This record gives sequence, structure tokens and C-alpha cells, in this order.
Amino acid sequence: MSDPTFAPRPTLEAVAARAGVSRATASRVVNGSEGVRAPLAERVRQAVDELGYVPNQAARTLVTRRNDAIAVVVAEPETRFFTDPFFAQQVRGISRELTAHDNQLVLLLTEGAADYGRVGRYLAGGHVDGALIFSLHSDDSLPVMARKAGVPTVIGGRPSWSDADTLYVDCDNRGGAQVAVRHLLGLGRRRIAHIAGPLDQTASVDRLDGYRDVLPDVDPKLIAEGDFTPEGGARAMGELLDHWPDLDAVFAASDVMASGALRVLRNRGMRVPEDVAVVGFDDITSVADWTDPPLTTIRQNIEEMGRMMARLLLRRLSPLAAVDGAPALSPIVTATQLVVRASA
Amino acid sequence: MSDPTFAPRPTLEAVAARAGVSRATASRVVNGSEGVRAPLAERVRQAVDELGYVPNQAARTLVTRRNDAIAVVVAEPETRFFTDPFFAQQVRGISRELTAHDNQLVLLLTEGAADYGRVGRYLAGGHVDGALIFSLHSDDSLPVMARKAGVPTVIGGRPSWSDADTLYVDCDNRGGAQVAVRHLLGLGRRRIAHIAGPLDQTASVDRLDGYRDVLPDVDPKLIAEGDFTPEGGARAMGELLDHWPDLDAVFAASDVMASGALRVLRNRGMRVPEDVAVVGFDDITSVADWTDPPLTTIRQNIEEMGRMMARLLLRRLSPLAAVDGAPALSPIVTATQLVVRASA
Repeated sequence: MSDPTFAPRPTLEAVAARAGVSRATASRVVNGSEGVRAPLAERVRQAVDELGYVPNQAARTLVTRRNDAIAVVVAEPETRFFTDPFFAQQVRGISRELTAHDNQLVLLLTEGAADYGRVGRYLAGGHVDGALIFSLHSDDSLPVMARKAGVPTVIGGRPSWSDADTLYVDCDNRGGAQVAVRHLLGLGRRRIAHIAGPLDQTASVDRLDGYRDVLPDVDPKLIAEGDFTPEGGARAMGELLDHWPDLDAVFAASDVMASGALRVLRNRGMRVPEDVAVVGFDDITSVADWTDPPLTTIRQNIEEMGRMMARLLLRRLSPLAAVDGAPALSPIVTATQLVVRASA
Repeated sequence: MSDPTFAPRPTLEAVAARAGVSRATASRVVNGSEGVRAPLAERVRQAVDELGYVPNQAARTLVTRRNDAIAVVVAEPETRFFTDPFFAQQVRGISRELTAHDNQLVLLLTEGAADYGRVGRYLAGGHVDGALIFSLHSDDSLPVMARKAGVPTVIGGRPSWSDADTLYVDCDNRGGAQVAVRHLLGLGRRRIAHIAGPLDQTASVDRLDGYRDVLPDVDPKLIAEGDFTPEGGARAMGELLDHWPDLDAVFAASDVMASGALRVLRNRGMRVPEDVAVVGFDDITSVADWTDPPLTTIRQNIEEMGRMMARLLLRRLSPLAAVDGAPALSPIVTATQLVVRASA
């Protein structure tokens, strides 16, 4: 095969002539602008294909998406990425959806925020067509880097800023938390504690808000902050029991933290659910089904949310192409669901 | 900064003159060939650095490694990738080493072998400087694809072909298996079964060979093939007990399979180690430490092997640069070690 750099190149004029449209119309289609009628756009695309037209390196990437590759960046060190089953489930959904559209999943791992400059350089290097970024903390520089790199992005989880251009997929964290706390109230529990996630993440703040919506006058000592790890959940449970030895329920902002809390309750000789009822959040099957007792929790469809993120990004990348089941270009917030098992 | 393409280029002759060596010697060093004495090679490298010599476009990419990105491809579907802790540990070592050299880890996930064509296209697209490929099965097309893509590669695990150019990192699977079986013989066990890994992988074949080295006349019905999953280990254990209800020891080719075997032994009311002694392979802490009873096993340093793969590849990519602790450009086989816990 000859080096494409030196092959004779068809011009935009040739494309326009073959498609029977003006140069301006051909240019708009080639550059992915909206506002060209579908049949005309289709003729231009056909002419581009037939002539093998390549506008210039940058535009060519936009038009043909020749990378067919999507970056996934998780704003956590790889150690947490591999130990928290939430991420594997989210990536599973993304992987299935990208594979269905023959796009390569390019997972960019880091050891921590100190490596984000390198991630930004990779994103800016033209190696991927778009990026899915998740588990953001409030001070994360990743979305800004992706924007500077010119890489279209969809965020997993509501970002802390609000901005009409930002696309994200999240579940109804606040509503789910309300349901969890109301379930505990319905069981007759009156001293309901909350183990929050790290409060520099919107999911944690939203779940805490939902808890407070139902219990507006709660003692602040019934709330302890964890970090979405089993150890953090255990530590928070210990603090709560030190202040409130007679608490009768705990709503933990994740199943993984709830599993740590269950261990502490067992070690202190407290029975679940007789003495303390426990509700988690996520419904990560490999956790909630296997705790002792199995965990009542608020289900979010993590894998499906991964698929939605991928679909939303592919739709943003190909305004001209039909993406099966493509959603509108706006944020998506999915419903949650109470799953009752033995712990509450 | 001016475009380096148009900067005046020092010639190879200039490098040779400055280093005080012949052009042929300079060329050998620049192209990464062996056979130049270390002090001479060092002088050539210094001259290259001082003059900023760049041999040609292809070599320039090799020399400057301008992507600063290394692909990791695991020849398993993402579902297995995320459930087998071996992979997380291997990737952890790779991640730490690449980060130490400011290289981005680019993990290319697939749903299975049907996606390898897409992986090959990504590798050929110039997005990474090299690739680390592991968990190969005998018919895997990935190494050929990487070669066609012109991407230097290091393989995790001895490949099934032999070839002077192929670099790989593995542990002494055969020697480790011999130690495991001799340990069981030393405990007085006489009916020692083996749960092999999938026999289309060299690690499985080598471990089986080590078992047979010590027990050359073993009944073939004392050998069952698993698939490196807990379920596969459980299934194999069941088959073995059906044929040999009075077996008194099992050597499983992985800790994960041994965990499945332990479950079957418990369900059948057999005590470990009193009735049946069990030895695993890998020493994956999150498995071997947590089984009941804790698992005697053959330790391989999985994380360190990941680091070695990364170092070997960086060394291949930069024959001119000093990579800290860089190994020679040849396959690496690391020692294994018996770790005695309660199961044998």
C-alpha cells in the first residue's frame, strides 16, 4: 500500500461536484455541522466515501471517527478501581455497548491525581474520539483537561458544576435515600444513623440530602462520613456507636460501606436486624447478596448506566449517524428501587 | 519550539565521530543490536544525547517514544479480567512501573476473541509505543496482530512458540509444581491428584509437566482439567473424587481453582488437611489467606512480574536510553517459592 500522505487527494470541490451540492453545503456536512437536510447530507457522505476524500488530519478524525476508540477515565487510583466492584460493573456496561458499535474501550489507569496531566496529554493526542469520566471529586481537573483536549465527554454521576453543555448519567440518589430512610421509619426505627460517602462527591451529598429530607431535625452526631470502602464504613459505624450506643438503624450510602458496618455490629454483639436494621445503596450483587445477613438496599442499575453513558457519547460524536436507541443529547437521571432482604 | 522535522539534523557520521567509533558501531548501538561492548555503547549514547541525533522518522518514534503510552491487552473477556484477582495484581505492577517512567497505561478491553481485529487496528493506529499481552491461549492471534501492527511487544507467560525475538516474563511453573508435589509426598501423601489449568495455556502445561516429573507413573484419572475459575476447580474436584474417593491430596494449578476444590471437599464432609491436603499455585493473598483453612501454595511474585514486563518493554523501546534497573533484552523466568499454611 502506498503511503497515504503522498497519495493524490480529492478536493472538497470534487466532493461537492459529485454530490451535486454547493461547496458550502459539502463543507458543513464534512465538518459535522447541523442544518443540512438529511438526503443532501447523505449524498455528500456518499461522495466522500466514493472519492476517499480526506479534508485534513483534524477534520478527518471528526468525520470518519477513524479511531473508533473511546477512553474511560476513572478518577480513582488503580488500587481502588480494582477493589471496588462498582467500577467493574460500570465498565462492563460501557464495554458491551462500545463493542456493539465496534468501538474500542481504552481504559486509562492512573496511580492518582498526580498523573492527570499525562492523561490529559493522551486525550489531547488524538488517540480517542471521546471520553467517559467517572467517580469525580469536587476538585477534579479531568473534565477541564478533556475540554481543553477537545475531546467530547460524558460524565458518570452528576458533576458539581452546572452547565448546559455537560452531559452526564446518574441515578436519583436523593430520591433513593428518601426511600431507604422511609423504609426504616416504616419498620418502627427511630434512631436512624447515616454513613455518608466522601462529601466531595455529589452522589454522597445527594444521598445525605435525601436522608435529611426525611429527618430534618436529626442530631448531626447520627451522621458519619465514610469513603466508599469497607474500612471507611467500619470506622464510621464505630464512631456512630460511640455517640449513640442505642441507635436502632443505619442507612449506609453504599453496600461496600454497609458490609464494613455489619462487621462492626457483629463484633460488638449487636444483632442485625433485631437490634440494628441496616440498609445499603447500589445493590452490587457480589456484595449485597453475600453479606451476613443479606443486605436490604437501594438498587441502581450500574451496568445499564454504563451502557447509557456510552450511547450518549456515541450520539454526541455522530450527530449525522443513527445510533440504535440513541437518547436525546441531555443528562439522564435513572430511577432507583428498594430491594428488601434480611438486614432491614 | 520549532518543528523538529525541519530542524537541521545531525548525521550518524557526526555521532560516530564524536563517540570515536566507526559508523557501523554507531549504527549497531542506535538500532538496538547487541554485540557492542558496554563502554563503547555508552559513548555512542552520550554522543546521541549531546547532538540530539534522530536517525529517521520510524526510529525517531522509537527514540523519543512520543506517545509515552503502552497498551495492555489481556486475552480474556472483560468479565474474567475483572473477576480473577491475578489480572489486577499483574496490572498493578505494570501501572506502577509505567507511572514511574511517566508512561500512560492504556488498557484495551474486549468481550472476547471476536474483538481482536479491532484491537489490532488500534495497535496499528500509532496510538501506543508498545504492548504488553498476557493470558495467551494457544490459538491466540494477538501476538501476530501486534507484530503486523509494528508494535514492539512483551508477552506475560511463556508463549507456545519459540522464537529468538520474542520477549516474555514468566515464573518457573514446572519447578514450582515439582516443589508442590514433593511437599505433599513429604507429608506422607500417596494418592495425589492434580487440578490442571486450561491446557491451551503454557502455564497449565508446564505445571502439569512438573507434577508428572515427580509422579511419572500416575493414573491419568488423578488428573482433571479446570479453567482457572472457582467453578472449574469445583467441577474438577468432583470428577476426581468420583474416580478416587480415597485420594489424600490435591495440587491445584491456581489458588482460585483450589478455593473451589475446598468448597467441594467441605460439602462432601472431608477434612482439610486431615483427610485431603490441598496445595494451590500463585499465592494471591486475597484468596490464599482467606480460604478455610488458609492455603498452602506456590508463590509467584505477580506484581513484580508485571513490573518486569513493563521494564523489559521500555528497554526494548529505548535501546539508547538508560531505563533504571533495565534487564537484558531476553526472556525472564522468575523463581517460585513454597508458602506453607494450614491446608497442607
